[in-house]
Amino acid sequence: MKVAIQGERGAFSHEAVLTFLGRQTLVPCNLSAQVFDSLQQKLSDAALIPLENSLAGSVAEHYDLLLSRDVFIEREFRLRIRHTLIAAPGVKLKQIKRVLSHPIALDQCRNFFREHPGIEAVPFYDTAGSVKHVMAEQLQDTAAIASKQAAEEYGAKILQSGLEDDKQNFTRFVLIRRTGKPDKKANKTSVCFSLLNVPGALFKALSVFALRDISLSKIESRPRRGYPWEYVFYVDFLRGDDEAARKALDHLREISEFVKVLGIYPAAE
Amino acid sequence: MKVAIQGERGAFSHEAVLTFLGRQTLVPCNLSAQVFDSLQQKLSDAALIPLENSLAGSVAEHYDLLLSRDVFIEREFRLRIRHTLIAAPGVKLKQIKRVLSHPIALDQCRNFFREHPGIEAVPFYDTAGSVKHVMAEQLQDTAAIASKQAAEEYGAKILQSGLEDDKQNFTRFVLIRRTGKPDKKANKTSVCFSLLNVPGALFKALSVFALRDISLSKIESRPRRGYPWEYVFYVDFLRGDDEAARKALDHLREISEFVKVLGIYPAAE
Repeated sequence: MKVAIQGERGAFSHEAVLTFLGRQTLVPCNLSAQVFDSLQQKLSDAALIPLENSLAGSVAEHYDLLLSRDVFIEREFRLRIRHTLIAAPGVKLKQIKRVLSHPIALDQCRNFFREHPGIEAVPFYDTAGSVKHVMAEQLQDTAAIASKQAAEEYGAKILQSGLEDDKQNFTRFVLIRRTGKPDKKANKTSVCFSLLNVPGALFKALSVFALRDISLSKIESRPRRGYPWEYVFYVDFLRGDDEAARKALDHLREISEFVKVLGIYPAAE
Repeated sequence: MKVAIQGERGAFSHEAVLTFLGRQTLVPCNLSAQVFDSLQQKLSDAALIPLENSLAGSVAEHYDLLLSRDVFIEREFRLRIRHTLIAAPGVKLKQIKRVLSHPIALDQCRNFFREHPGIEAVPFYDTAGSVKHVMAEQLQDTAAIASKQAAEEYGAKILQSGLEDDKQNFTRFVLIRRTGKPDKKANKTSVCFSLLNVPGALFKALSVFALRDISLSKIESRPRRGYPWEYVFYVDFLRGDDEAARKALDHLREISEFVKVLGIYPAAE
């Protein structure tokens, strides 16, 4: 299977593909929009994209793309994010003066920098890209923070593992395809909808779930592209394709400008 | 006044300071947490931080920091984001083969890259940082996308303005201080709260506003740091420090694990 990801080989999305789908043909894309292009142009069969990190929050762009493109969420996975200090082979920790990584990764490893005041944290555009850069330039005083997969990918060496301050660091990924239908084991539904901008509109919209004792696991408002300061709501609720869920969605359609079902799928364990 | 921002000089936050506060002493910080540190250690008097972009969505880290640190939102501002193509002096557009910028900025200028298929978009860690890099290396085939302020800051030249695809590109900034009280002209309140994880909890929480005809302008759920897969809700509502708002907040406190008022302030025009 050809699986598109955003980022370079060795990115956490690559680690997620290996962990949950095994060895597949990877289609790495620079930008998130290119991941969706690749899927729609049939250059890939599926894509694995991060939606939310337990510490850093939602990946806004992926929510926008799920709304604007025709795709269907087939499965959900949860990856434990482990940050690894990586350098060129032969380089020792005591030689390191600078560490490159994505700003979010650097921020998730603040204890490491507190314990090593002589080492400077330098923001870089990408985690795996920082390892690639260290190796391409064969830097002797610079390391990178990335997934352990990145070390293997670029022939670099792991200096230290488990750099993340908070071990409750997880990223929720979804596997998307061009089309699909609900799996029989589906127990989670993702929808987005837009409401008239009147007081109490959201309250009414949530009543369609509350009145049927359907639990929400997530709610988020996002600016609606092309409609400044109008919002689209993204809701995940803990039901598959059953009668209560179908009735709730019908009810939601009555009071919404639009409703889009993004997927009905088995939740991550 | 010493005003802390996240990012380099020439960042959009710097442009926001100049636009809304005039010439102040800038305290640029690498990481967002350092902006809050700077404020709490009295190295700065205030900080101007982006909370939300009309296209890219919320700045998750800033929402987390507003919750975990003792600060108060004093004002809200809305900056129109204009992307500018910037190169070293003397360099012409036809020489450009690569354009560096933050991935979000690159993604907001897709039409430019479609019109110039010979120019490659290269993700960089920061918009202003990409101009700094182009100038430091005096690159002749590489430009950057950033604020026009960045061109001035680093002595670079503007090749083209208004690169953003969608002119409805605004960022909402807030001015925060260590402490504060509501301005008399306040007409907006930002709160965050956490609820017991029971079906319908959010529905009840929103009823405190709906029952009093108080309009929400934003709602968002964010993972609660240190409590995996528990959520904190962030709500903005369109009231200042009046009786209905106070009663709604009292009511919210009755049914929440905690409620934190992040600020009561005049909304941006």
